[in-house]
Amino acid sequence: MIKVSVNGYGTIGKRVADATLKQPDMELVGVAKTSPNYEAMVAFKRGMRIFVPKESKDKFIGAGIEPSGTIDEMIDESDVVVDATPNGVGAEYKKIYVEKGKPALFQGGEKSNVGEMSFSALCNYDEAVGKKYLRVVSCNTTAMLRSICTVNKVSQVKKVRGTVIRRAADPKEYKKGPINALVPDPASVPSHHAKDVNTVLKDLDIITMAVISPTNLMHVHLLDIELEKEVTREEILKQVLSTPRLVIVPGKAGINSTAELVELARDLGRERNDIPEVMIFEDSIYVKGKEVFMMYAVHQESIVVPENIDAVRAVSGIRESINVTNTSMGIRKGYII
Amino acid sequence: MIKVSVNGYGTIGKRVADATLKQPDMELVGVAKTSPNYEAMVAFKRGMRIFVPKESKDKFIGAGIEPSGTIDEMIDESDVVVDATPNGVGAEYKKIYVEKGKPALFQGGEKSNVGEMSFSALCNYDEAVGKKYLRVVSCNTTAMLRSICTVNKVSQVKKVRGTVIRRAADPKEYKKGPINALVPDPASVPSHHAKDVNTVLKDLDIITMAVISPTNLMHVHLLDIELEKEVTREEILKQVLSTPRLVIVPGKAGINSTAELVELARDLGRERNDIPEVMIFEDSIYVKGKEVFMMYAVHQESIVVPENIDAVRAVSGIRESINVTNTSMGIRKGYII
Repeated sequence: MIKVSVNGYGTIGKRVADATLKQPDMELVGVAKTSPNYEAMVAFKRGMRIFVPKESKDKFIGAGIEPSGTIDEMIDESDVVVDATPNGVGAEYKKIYVEKGKPALFQGGEKSNVGEMSFSALCNYDEAVGKKYLRVVSCNTTAMLRSICTVNKVSQVKKVRGTVIRRAADPKEYKKGPINALVPDPASVPSHHAKDVNTVLKDLDIITMAVISPTNLMHVHLLDIELEKEVTREEILKQVLSTPRLVIVPGKAGINSTAELVELARDLGRERNDIPEVMIFEDSIYVKGKEVFMMYAVHQESIVVPENIDAVRAVSGIRESINVTNTSMGIRKGYII
Repeated sequence: MIKVSVNGYGTIGKRVADATLKQPDMELVGVAKTSPNYEAMVAFKRGMRIFVPKESKDKFIGAGIEPSGTIDEMIDESDVVVDATPNGVGAEYKKIYVEKGKPALFQGGEKSNVGEMSFSALCNYDEAVGKKYLRVVSCNTTAMLRSICTVNKVSQVKKVRGTVIRRAADPKEYKKGPINALVPDPASVPSHHAKDVNTVLKDLDIITMAVISPTNLMHVHLLDIELEKEVTREEILKQVLSTPRLVIVPGKAGINSTAELVELARDLGRERNDIPEVMIFEDSIYVKGKEVFMMYAVHQESIVVPENIDAVRAVSGIRESINVTNTSMGIRKGYII
């Protein structure tokens, strides 16, 4: 059993902790939290061990949460640490992981040099096996890489031109805007997403532009992928339909928005209405000669969770992970409904 | 076993159908749906029987849904019909329920004369037992009545002055606004909520004003309740804490918004992140002499579901329902966390 701890119990951390509990070969040491809010209270009531900064112990006890120890002690007990602390904090913690000799994963908000490589399971799992420090790329980059590496199996991808329409904040965040504007992010081209894709696919000709939109449900990407050779729409559709972590939203389902995608997740009984799969709108898949167009939605809260679980196995030297993760987490392929 | 059917499978209908499946004394005949969208597809995949208008049969088969019969046939098989059709449509269907001699419940969007009485379980369950047609009051009215009838147990309520800050649409609805404005609803006073409370508490002096706000998560109410005699905050808090269907959101939990309440529901593993309890902010309970002030949030999608289930038992002549509904649905009292 791989002893996994999760440092940082926010949007990503809570989901990685839950996913860890579902793995046949992993054991959750506990989660680290710095403030005793409702998220910590729920985790504690669910029986998770909570580790806290030494100086915060009393604050947690006052909120009815009995800490199991300090964050340092949690790291000592772990085989692998999943760092899900806020952007930039992971790099600070890396010093401690290195000092204690513990393999660790970082999130996409960290600079790309925080790990020995940037990780995206469908693109470079094999290369990551045996590394000690991995950076799991961000939600948008994860979705883009899954899509590109899948289309690449039909014919080699030469060039990608992509638009990222970003959600403004996560559902629980009410202090972040914009609330009523579209914000080029940034107005300069390319956006960081292209650069981040290049940390995994180093030689790909990719340009992305991004705009923030006042919504908090999901991102939407619009891709124009140029291939080495001409392909048919059927070849692309077939490849996508047979690839877990990408699903097709059927045209006949009457789903025209991210609002209905989230409603579908609720109706399907998905935990926290999570959708870790890239959700490709069937009617958006369009092929013209060597060019493939598509539109898909990205659930920013959950999409990187399977990749985090795979990365735990990669740094543990395990050669096969993706199928185990898919099965344990109920991750789908084909038509979502 | 009471054979229950649900006519209309939208926001309320899908939840009543799920709740029916959890009742020890009820059996779900099926649900009626007019268009074969993703909601119908999920219900069908989950094994529910789908009943459709005669002329729509082919449309459903084309979407991969095999109907179990017509809506007429569904009604014939039922002991009680829960009508969850859109506002005003229920009154049309009533003719059919009456013709077939079937007891039926209607939702708060129907005019109050659609039923023999308006129903709110904590206020008038006993009076409803044995009636054949009940109107379950709307989400806002349900929350207000639960709160008023609970406070009324401490001292008789003389007068209520309330503000309703309404959500603009349900999460799945992306065509309804406003998207960036506050809309007095209506600008005239009182809003219909006061009148609707008076369909249950006929002699209560109540005035409400309402404003629509560009959010889709929950409503928020601000109440000023005047009692017959002076009370203490502790008496009010104690009464609320011991009443299921009202819960207290503890001040120490760091929950300052409806966004975090929905996040809490997700973390707690609530189906569809539903919160059928009235969620009272602990710090908002304030007492000055005979006046009680409070602020609470109302999950418009799910709050009327327990009352619908109770109403099924009331029209079936069953004298005890509230505790059975609470237990089967996992409805809480006390501090929510």
